[in-house]
Amino acid sequence: MSARVLIVDDLFPNVRLLETKLGLEYFDTLAAMNGRDAIAICEKGLCDLVLLDVMMPGMDGFEVCRHLKNNPLTAHIPVVMVTALDQPADRLRGLDAGADDFLTKPVDDTALFSRVRSLVRLKAVTDELRQRALASREFGIGDPLALATAETGLDARILLIEDRPGSAERLAGALRQHHVVTVEPDPQAALHLAAEAPFDLALVSLDLAGFDGLRLCSQLRSLDRTRTMPLIMLAEEHDRARVVRGLDFGVHDFLMRPVDRNELMARVRTQVKRKRFTEALRGAMQASLQMAVIDALTGLHNRRYLDNHLGTLFGDEAARRAQLSVLILDIDHFKGINDSFGHEAGDEVLRGFAERVRQHTRPIDIVARYGGEEVVVILPEAGLGEAQGIAERIRERVEAVPFSVLGATRTVPVTVSIGVAVRRGEDLCAADMLRRADLALYRAKAAGRNRVESQAA
Amino acid sequence: MSARVLIVDDLFPNVRLLETKLGLEYFDTLAAMNGRDAIAICEKGLCDLVLLDVMMPGMDGFEVCRHLKNNPLTAHIPVVMVTALDQPADRLRGLDAGADDFLTKPVDDTALFSRVRSLVRLKAVTDELRQRALASREFGIGDPLALATAETGLDARILLIEDRPGSAERLAGALRQHHVVTVEPDPQAALHLAAEAPFDLALVSLDLAGFDGLRLCSQLRSLDRTRTMPLIMLAEEHDRARVVRGLDFGVHDFLMRPVDRNELMARVRTQVKRKRFTEALRGAMQASLQMAVIDALTGLHNRRYLDNHLGTLFGDEAARRAQLSVLILDIDHFKGINDSFGHEAGDEVLRGFAERVRQHTRPIDIVARYGGEEVVVILPEAGLGEAQGIAERIRERVEAVPFSVLGATRTVPVTVSIGVAVRRGEDLCAADMLRRADLALYRAKAAGRNRVESQAA
Repeated sequence: MSARVLIVDDLFPNVRLLETKLGLEYFDTLAAMNGRDAIAICEKGLCDLVLLDVMMPGMDGFEVCRHLKNNPLTAHIPVVMVTALDQPADRLRGLDAGADDFLTKPVDDTALFSRVRSLVRLKAVTDELRQRALASREFGIGDPLALATAETGLDARILLIEDRPGSAERLAGALRQHHVVTVEPDPQAALHLAAEAPFDLALVSLDLAGFDGLRLCSQLRSLDRTRTMPLIMLAEEHDRARVVRGLDFGVHDFLMRPVDRNELMARVRTQVKRKRFTEALRGAMQASLQMAVIDALTGLHNRRYLDNHLGTLFGDEAARRAQLSVLILDIDHFKGINDSFGHEAGDEVLRGFAERVRQHTRPIDIVARYGGEEVVVILPEAGLGEAQGIAERIRERVEAVPFSVLGATRTVPVTVSIGVAVRRGEDLCAADMLRRADLALYRAKAAGRNRVESQAA
Repeated sequence: MSARVLIVDDLFPNVRLLETKLGLEYFDTLAAMNGRDAIAICEKGLCDLVLLDVMMPGMDGFEVCRHLKNNPLTAHIPVVMVTALDQPADRLRGLDAGADDFLTKPVDDTALFSRVRSLVRLKAVTDELRQRALASREFGIGDPLALATAETGLDARILLIEDRPGSAERLAGALRQHHVVTVEPDPQAALHLAAEAPFDLALVSLDLAGFDGLRLCSQLRSLDRTRTMPLIMLAEEHDRARVVRGLDFGVHDFLMRPVDRNELMARVRTQVKRKRFTEALRGAMQASLQMAVIDALTGLHNRRYLDNHLGTLFGDEAARRAQLSVLILDIDHFKGINDSFGHEAGDEVLRGFAERVRQHTRPIDIVARYGGEEVVVILPEAGLGEAQGIAERIRERVEAVPFSVLGATRTVPVTVSIGVAVRRGEDLCAADMLRRADLALYRAKAAGRNRVESQAA
């Protein structure tokens, strides 16, 4: 994936060198000579990845990284810190600040390119999701991006695939401080485990006895159930080439042995945060989509859903031959409830009414709020007799117990009138059937309310 | 990106060979020995890409490909046809059947891997979008996937970046049969053009005089405005290595010179179809999200949106200091309209009423359906006087012209009562302000309806 890489360094020759290297690999580059400019470029959404020098006058690299990772607008941009120092303490400070990786000067080309490509590819997949989330924020549905900065990355369920007992014990011991760890030495068993239990992350040893750990990684990346689970490879120095291949096909990160305990914790945390952010975005999208067909006040389906669903039920020949009944329910004198007790009490009555209707219908029935105080129930596979029975039961249960409102300080007696109709062979669309139910409802109202009436036979 | 590749071939040694080659590159493989099995595996969603033999007994590869590409469930899976024949006519038949590419036996490894990787990466990005679309179908919102098979891939706006006049003329001439073509020989000018006009596809010569066409591709893939536009490289035989690099960083396809006219048309059509499908998915998602905050009957914002928005307006200190007024509007004797003319007429009145309210409010005002026949208008930066003025104008415009209903066969006189309130310093939440507007509305009703009343001073 090509991408725009932002190079942040206060020394021009360093910028120039990285620009040349990345340009030859067909990356687009931008440069910033200080932290402020870098942050501004990121906030404008002008880059896909940041290569960030640590030692800069003014704001140093750690501070810039923290700033980017704490802002919902920029938290999703991968940051690779570049420095002359090869001190574990510095690596750790960078990772703690939220950096996605750490490269040491002079920068090794293979390591640089494979890491940049891998991060850019992973970002391309979540970008689509992020764009939809930004749209949902524009529509005033909520702000899922704020979740990105709130997530701690702790308390994760981790699968450690490692067959050296000493190493497994050491790693699991460290991780158990903050996470729940399952150790599995056998790669086949691990594959089954991962497909069945929802792990937040897997650590995979590349040197399993008699098995290529990288193949396990590729299988985990290919299976539907595990392909979004972050993977971290555990590698020896001589595995460098395989590490690059792993990054290339979608493994998220790696740790070189002997594994530094703090680096382990930091890299695991980063991956868990990223995974949970993606999940939160997916969840928010799902919720937004669901909202489009749910009535906010009662939690029933809304009229949009009802109309779509009736369209399907009347759409094709086969569906049209099946039995189908409908009820239209209208709360009696609802206006009076609003006028006497106020709108809030009216809303409480509507919610309580919806709940009772739901309780006394079958799971296959569709209950939808049709308008103000009107509810429609679609009863598949029900004839007139059964529909009348259900309607009568609802009418009776509404009348039997008054509704409690205003923090249970008052009760309101409520009754409901119901019109019933069944589908006829000549009905071409749902409106034909609904019209008969509506007429029946009208007769129920005219005959004194608190009644069930059915379509003319 | 690792992936599950389905190998379809009736000869076991061929299957075995491809399995071994792909396995060494860490792809997961599945095999099918005939077309039926291949289709079943694809429909179950078990693979990410299909390598499809042409010559098979029973259903041949072309038929399998057409079948996969005409089914909304499988149309998104990339298909690469593999055959012993190197006939342009066969390449074309495959492309016409919807294949994404064509490889000739004995299969060249570099060509195979680079093509498989490229297709799998492009698919990974749209998969996320497709998952959301499947969810929206589950919720009964609509079926955006059906669009995939309906799209023709014609009438596209194409940018041809080519500086050899003869070739440009030939290519543009062929494409103009079905598309609108802009020819631009200068790469810098082309980059500007592409960022400004919405092209559906760009064809880029890799041999521009004094400029690396591949760099132009990388720039087009990096810029926000052009990164989702499909790119096809025009290459000479000696450019093979650069073609592989291009595919690797996200260029969608290539054509070797001398360009076969029919192959040109087929590859362009495939890319345009894919792009429009992705756009349709995005559009459908956007529409679903919008639906969550729009009232289906009136097209006004719904109560969910209003509550969210009021939350923001009362949320922070600065917003709370700004002027803000609210109107609650309730149609007089609406129940009577429903009872006399039927629900459909009632709905028509609601829609007409919503329209008049919208016409007589300002663009910055929020108009939302609050419940049955109630509408709330939020007036930012408006004091009591201005709010009363707007309310009076609405009341007057509703009364002035009766509403036409039932296919304009009847007219219904309608009046509205309106309660007005302004935000006070002591209001902590929107409910405090709304309560005063509700009380004012109650007084308007009590005083005979068709009136505007304001909160006590």
